[in-house]
Amino acid sequence: MAQDRKQPRPKAEPPKGFRDYFGAEVLERQQMLDAIARVYHAHGFDPLETAAVETVEALGKFLPDVDRPNAGVFSWQEDEGEGGTWLALRYDMTAPLARVAAQYRNDLPSPYRRYAMGPVWRNEKPGPGRFRQFYQCDADTVGAASVAADAEICAMLAEALEAVGIERGDYIVRINNRKVLNGVLEVAGLSGDDKDHERGIVLRAIDKLDRLGEAGVRALMGAGRKDDSGDFTQGAGLSAEQADVIMGFMAARRDTAAQTVARLHDLVAGSDIGREGVAELETIADLLAAQGYGPDRIVIDPSVVRGLGYYTGPVYEAELTFEILDEKGRPRQFGSVAGGGRYDDLVKRFTGQEVPATGVSIGVDRLLAALRAKGRLSGATQGPVIVTVMDRDRMADYQRMAADLRAAGIRAEVYLGNPRNFGNQLKYADKRGSPVAIIQGGDEAARGVVQIKDLILGAKLAGEATLEEWKSQPAQVEVPLADLVARTRAILDRHR
Amino acid sequence: MAQDRKQPRPKAEPPKGFRDYFGAEVLERQQMLDAIARVYHAHGFDPLETAAVETVEALGKFLPDVDRPNAGVFSWQEDEGEGGTWLALRYDMTAPLARVAAQYRNDLPSPYRRYAMGPVWRNEKPGPGRFRQFYQCDADTVGAASVAADAEICAMLAEALEAVGIERGDYIVRINNRKVLNGVLEVAGLSGDDKDHERGIVLRAIDKLDRLGEAGVRALMGAGRKDDSGDFTQGAGLSAEQADVIMGFMAARRDTAAQTVARLHDLVAGSDIGREGVAELETIADLLAAQGYGPDRIVIDPSVVRGLGYYTGPVYEAELTFEILDEKGRPRQFGSVAGGGRYDDLVKRFTGQEVPATGVSIGVDRLLAALRAKGRLSGATQGPVIVTVMDRDRMADYQRMAADLRAAGIRAEVYLGNPRNFGNQLKYADKRGSPVAIIQGGDEAARGVVQIKDLILGAKLAGEATLEEWKSQPAQVEVPLADLVARTRAILDRHR
Repeated sequence: MAQDRKQPRPKAEPPKGFRDYFGAEVLERQQMLDAIARVYHAHGFDPLETAAVETVEALGKFLPDVDRPNAGVFSWQEDEGEGGTWLALRYDMTAPLARVAAQYRNDLPSPYRRYAMGPVWRNEKPGPGRFRQFYQCDADTVGAASVAADAEICAMLAEALEAVGIERGDYIVRINNRKVLNGVLEVAGLSGDDKDHERGIVLRAIDKLDRLGEAGVRALMGAGRKDDSGDFTQGAGLSAEQADVIMGFMAARRDTAAQTVARLHDLVAGSDIGREGVAELETIADLLAAQGYGPDRIVIDPSVVRGLGYYTGPVYEAELTFEILDEKGRPRQFGSVAGGGRYDDLVKRFTGQEVPATGVSIGVDRLLAALRAKGRLSGATQGPVIVTVMDRDRMADYQRMAADLRAAGIRAEVYLGNPRNFGNQLKYADKRGSPVAIIQGGDEAARGVVQIKDLILGAKLAGEATLEEWKSQPAQVEVPLADLVARTRAILDRHR
Repeated sequence: MAQDRKQPRPKAEPPKGFRDYFGAEVLERQQMLDAIARVYHAHGFDPLETAAVETVEALGKFLPDVDRPNAGVFSWQEDEGEGGTWLALRYDMTAPLARVAAQYRNDLPSPYRRYAMGPVWRNEKPGPGRFRQFYQCDADTVGAASVAADAEICAMLAEALEAVGIERGDYIVRINNRKVLNGVLEVAGLSGDDKDHERGIVLRAIDKLDRLGEAGVRALMGAGRKDDSGDFTQGAGLSAEQADVIMGFMAARRDTAAQTVARLHDLVAGSDIGREGVAELETIADLLAAQGYGPDRIVIDPSVVRGLGYYTGPVYEAELTFEILDEKGRPRQFGSVAGGGRYDDLVKRFTGQEVPATGVSIGVDRLLAALRAKGRLSGATQGPVIVTVMDRDRMADYQRMAADLRAAGIRAEVYLGNPRNFGNQLKYADKRGSPVAIIQGGDEAARGVVQIKDLILGAKLAGEATLEEWKSQPAQVEVPLADLVARTRAILDRHR
């Protein structure tokens, strides 16, 4: 550190777009991940944990923002001595899964059901509430061509949302099929390799229906759209008739799955791929209905697209349907918290052989934000019991009290700051959210007793108590040392 | 993906030095992290999760291998448009904690007890069993000058090791103090800024005592040492008398803490800093003894150094004392699985103000390897019950059976591969380690029954059963559909 002395002090802040999570935030996320993992595991999915780092070659370029294929990833080159391989942080869990499925194709069971949870990284411009590291919690089935696998993932997604505390009625899983969309594009005269660019614009436009509304999407299908800031996005150049076909498709959802499927049949008449997609949706709808997943939980909805280019069949997403207040206090729909679909070509990149796969990704941080906004997270854990220090020569005694409390399952610690100012010890207990403070001076030690101070009751009494309450409910009691654990436990139970 | 078609296929492998973790490996690590977190939390420590990415400026350069200050970290530069900041993956949990403690110094409680668990990254040459991403599980107390904080961490470390299944007697926590070492160096004539280089060599030499033996360490203190490969490491150039003083210090451990402390008193006679260090060790030993942590769990051991340059007071490490067999079948000591110490200057880098801090890091992956070598990890979780598919038109029925089993807490799934070859379905169940397969063809469905096949018993009978056993314990039973869950549960209970 000698060389640091002359340098300016480093700034104590994380890189732009990264943040720290403290206490309850960490525990709440871990509880959510555990709850989702239990659902995935119960459905026969096995955990897989790949490293944060992959070769750029293996990751490929499948980020949603296909306009800028080289952006979006944190990457660097290894030392030349290592061959100069380009490495990158994973931007999702699907690309590493495709690599694993190819690498271990002779060893893994087939179908391979796996789940994965952990952070992913996006090298994007950070904004309010938009971070460059966030958690995903994925489940995928590799090697199952049947759409029963897609239906299973959708049903499991509903179960996972309920397991983390989203009540039935507060979410909806919506299913569509890329094949139906491709059929509609075919009907609209947008098939063929030479229409690749236009199809890309149309896909991205449809995906923005929630945000831009029908007029915005129509503009993007036509000449283009100028946004609020004045920036112009080039459109796909479709005719009004072509746009009508596509807008009609997006509005094809009817009251029941059967009616929606019938409507889609009409819309893709003449397209083989379209008919195949509608038949798949029908199978999925039948399977889910037979298992009791009605339209209160899962619906066929042609407006679902999902931004990713690699989907080849069913696509699905989960949306929270309750309103929350935004930063300006206006009610708004919370929106999508999970999405996925079938991608039959990702493993083929490595092996040349097509491997059918389908899977979902839950955006855990968004889901936590939603539950927090709804007041469904406790927001705090119990602070520890604080054993205060009256006499610094008797630290061992205080440590033993804390150890006795912990042995009884009570979170407890000894105050380890400078004990001189007792007021600071109580301020510390307050900052920690401690329910109870333990006090033992030399006098109490000589008599074999301790003081137990009920900090929650104390705060209440200080605020609002009458004299009678003060007398009947003393916030501090003296008890024999032998009763320390039992009496502390009683106070904690009273406040539970 | 159009542009990929002409390119060669990507290699399906992770970058060198990175690996994948499957199934039980992931679950076992999560269980270990949970168990350690419970111990830390019970002691009043709060979780903190920082991002994987920090600025290089904030991380600083504190890796153990101080010979190569620029190596060891994965780093890259942001786009020039972003100001060109250098970012890096964290190489430990302590540097991010120092940044957080400085950044939030007005908001955090003081002392601040925090724990952190997650991967860290080292850009080192990978080798057999040496990976560039591995887990750490840290607990630190920031803002407590008292060595009671160090004693608490050591006691908590012992509790954490026992909580993950290391039995008492199979580990030892060893404590030393850098101040004592500095006192010894002073006595040996190695104090003063101009001896910085020699002290560094001596520190690293001492830290290698386990590996190099006394002769190797002595060589490094003197002229230098040639290793087995013929590479020469420059020594510190000490005289034999100077080396004697240091070697005497390392061998100062006696049967009891009191004896060791007395011996150290003699060795540092004349050095103020040395006396201060011995007094701290004495306080720590007294605190731990009073709480019942005897020499079967925690000892004062002057041979402990810890490689990191930033330690300023007590240092400690936990070692597993049982032998395991190495890759060549030879018994060897497992060695260190956790270490830490007091570092009073890390926060000062940011704020200019000294903030006392002490903490430990548990090497979770090494600990898992040790438990696995000892046969203390189950090594496998229960595979799911497999509902086989005899009739692909009745997928909804099979899914419902799996859902019923799951609702009763039984892990279950429907086979989702091509159902045509029934043998493949049973092979799949075998690969998954499934205890039970459920079978229902059209005939059984018509009669309202299912076949339950006990795969564990089946495998046993196929291997070794007598005819009597075959008759008395049929591995496959037909039961009414209504009894599916109860009868499956009974089989699972029998194999528990």
